[in-house]
Amino acid sequence: MSETKTNLQIDSARLWRDIHDTAKFGGTPKGGVKRLTLSEEDRQVRDWFRDACEAAGCEVHVDALGTMFAIRKGRDMSKAPVGLGSHLDTQPTGGKFDGMLGTLAALEVVRTLNDAGIETDAPLCIVNWTNEEGSRFAPAMMASASYAGEYTPEDILSRRDAEGVSVAQALKAIGYDGSEPVGQRKFSAFVELHIEQGPLLEAEHKTIGVVDRGQGIVWYNGEIHGFAAHAGTTPMPLRRDALAALSEVVLTVERIAKENGPDAVGTLGETVIENPSRNVIAGDLTFTAEFRSPSSKTLDLLDSEFQKAVGDIAKRRRVEIKLDRFWRKEPSVFDPRLVEAVQKASDTLGYASRRITSGAGHDACNLNAVMPAAMIFVPCKDGVSHNELEDATQADCAAGANVLLHTVLSLAG
Amino acid sequence: MSETKTNLQIDSARLWRDIHDTAKFGGTPKGGVKRLTLSEEDRQVRDWFRDACEAAGCEVHVDALGTMFAIRKGRDMSKAPVGLGSHLDTQPTGGKFDGMLGTLAALEVVRTLNDAGIETDAPLCIVNWTNEEGSRFAPAMMASASYAGEYTPEDILSRRDAEGVSVAQALKAIGYDGSEPVGQRKFSAFVELHIEQGPLLEAEHKTIGVVDRGQGIVWYNGEIHGFAAHAGTTPMPLRRDALAALSEVVLTVERIAKENGPDAVGTLGETVIENPSRNVIAGDLTFTAEFRSPSSKTLDLLDSEFQKAVGDIAKRRRVEIKLDRFWRKEPSVFDPRLVEAVQKASDTLGYASRRITSGAGHDACNLNAVMPAAMIFVPCKDGVSHNELEDATQADCAAGANVLLHTVLSLAG
Repeated sequence: MSETKTNLQIDSARLWRDIHDTAKFGGTPKGGVKRLTLSEEDRQVRDWFRDACEAAGCEVHVDALGTMFAIRKGRDMSKAPVGLGSHLDTQPTGGKFDGMLGTLAALEVVRTLNDAGIETDAPLCIVNWTNEEGSRFAPAMMASASYAGEYTPEDILSRRDAEGVSVAQALKAIGYDGSEPVGQRKFSAFVELHIEQGPLLEAEHKTIGVVDRGQGIVWYNGEIHGFAAHAGTTPMPLRRDALAALSEVVLTVERIAKENGPDAVGTLGETVIENPSRNVIAGDLTFTAEFRSPSSKTLDLLDSEFQKAVGDIAKRRRVEIKLDRFWRKEPSVFDPRLVEAVQKASDTLGYASRRITSGAGHDACNLNAVMPAAMIFVPCKDGVSHNELEDATQADCAAGANVLLHTVLSLAG
Repeated sequence: MSETKTNLQIDSARLWRDIHDTAKFGGTPKGGVKRLTLSEEDRQVRDWFRDACEAAGCEVHVDALGTMFAIRKGRDMSKAPVGLGSHLDTQPTGGKFDGMLGTLAALEVVRTLNDAGIETDAPLCIVNWTNEEGSRFAPAMMASASYAGEYTPEDILSRRDAEGVSVAQALKAIGYDGSEPVGQRKFSAFVELHIEQGPLLEAEHKTIGVVDRGQGIVWYNGEIHGFAAHAGTTPMPLRRDALAALSEVVLTVERIAKENGPDAVGTLGETVIENPSRNVIAGDLTFTAEFRSPSSKTLDLLDSEFQKAVGDIAKRRRVEIKLDRFWRKEPSVFDPRLVEAVQKASDTLGYASRRITSGAGHDACNLNAVMPAAMIFVPCKDGVSHNELEDATQADCAAGANVLLHTVLSLAG
């Protein structure tokens, strides 16, 4: 890395301003963001992003799943571009940084190179992956998974949200049903900057997390069918209470995750009772559950223990419990050469760093299956994410963007 | 009771036909009824009921809470009428008999007297009480409670459903915002026929339950405030999971009710998670809970044990749990003279009977505070109620209606 390049820094104030400007699309009273994928708010931020990339001299393409690719030309256009970016959708009560930081930092990297008049050998490509969060359509990270060949685009396009709207319909509705075939555009590597969404970096006063692994995930959809009966006249011993059965399932998920800790986590995040009434015993309900671990073996263990425990609860309480393990993502191990490039960029810039496992799923974890991928983490306040209180400092965001800049420069030449 | 009168029987086929005809208003595919109070379906059955009462020679009046009073003249109109009836609203997944049987049997009693050319000394009054179920507006049995002076009509009119619609608005919308002041119309007594909604009569092969007591009830609205955080990156020990806390509350309600059994019951019937997502730890949710017992002392005990247990759960899990005990109904003891009249009618007709406690709340329990009231129970299949599978036999329904007929005759002279 030459002197000039080492001294090259992104514009911290410009990046910070972009983060807060885009937070207005779907901004909530509590200072968070509600921008579900392919919603009207998502359309607004996508339009803003396309305009900004074009203003930075990029050519923007959209694929059949709505993923946006902004190309910055390189000296040698025969070379595959270096990919950098993240996502612009959020959770129902999300924050300003999850996804946004990585996508806007990628834009900032391009702007910085423009300002410095630096042309890279290989082209660069800023990417905004569709539906990373997975809270409107399952599975999460569906676009990058489909790009990596895990699902056919047709399968993904047919997935429906709670209102029965399909991905295809939602894409058309906001005008992002692109023409480019999914997975056609190749990269030499992909680098994603993201907030940690966990407490480690902050606790250890580290600025940069050099991500070398991503946790594996299993997702379940469940149903419990007991018997709806009168709350006043049905003696306790005769009841088949679906909500009481669910309560045991919730506490079982918690117990199994703790027993397989410290890395394993388990969550039962959603449940909906059918036709609830305060004086009717819950008869039927649906729920979702998940487990995560950096070890495939532990995932197997969590899954088998859970399946067995659920069977016992159903038998003892005389209810039917359906458990559909509809998605499993294996733990990812990032490309050592790329992880080393991130480490070197961070060291060169003099930031305190540590190797870290990603607790969350990320598009980079999917892409790692088909190209060298890596991630850069920066601390977030109290490790809080997927919450309107999600927060990070301007200095840490800038540090992450600088590591992204120098990692990309080392890759693109 | 004279020979003629003892031989007098209601028209079983006509009553059975009415039960099935009215079940069409809000009828569900599974053969149940969804007819929430003051809904469009409720308007339809009310219109049918008014027409049927007028066709039977009654004069129909509506009070300010939508309760319908159908008067059959007596020889001595200076005498207070004998009241008989029940309610026409249902649970979200209710059956054909809960409420309907008592209201339609009252109509059948009047038709039978008409056919036999029998004029009673005191007038009769068939009543359809508004919102017995309480699943759209709380509290349940609001109209009879207001009639008995437990709530002011203004208070009840201002209660709102989940969509924010007030009782006053709902009454106006279906045209049943009557002019008669609530509680003005006095009765000498009130008799309500109802399915047991429990398993005892069927188990003991008894046709008639002579109800001498009604259970007391406490109702709670609850909120749990934990902390919504990322399901993949928040270590188990750092979590403040509202749904895990709720699960302990659900199992606590079940445990406390069992420990105070066999008569006590406890149910947590509803919960709604705020902004649920499969990969977000539940941060905030609401729930409802209730306990019932025929003993005031036991109700006190259930309440205090519950409050204490909830406090412990909140402290241990570092979440906030708000518990609002917004309604308590004391157990009711029915008028002995009236209970005796029911017993005598049943004996005279030769039905197998037993004294029984009402596990459910009923309008008659409220009215018992301001006039002699009593109830007649008939068996329902497997004790199932508040369920689309709710069922009863034509013979048992007719037997109950005959006991109602002869009880009323003995009271009205």
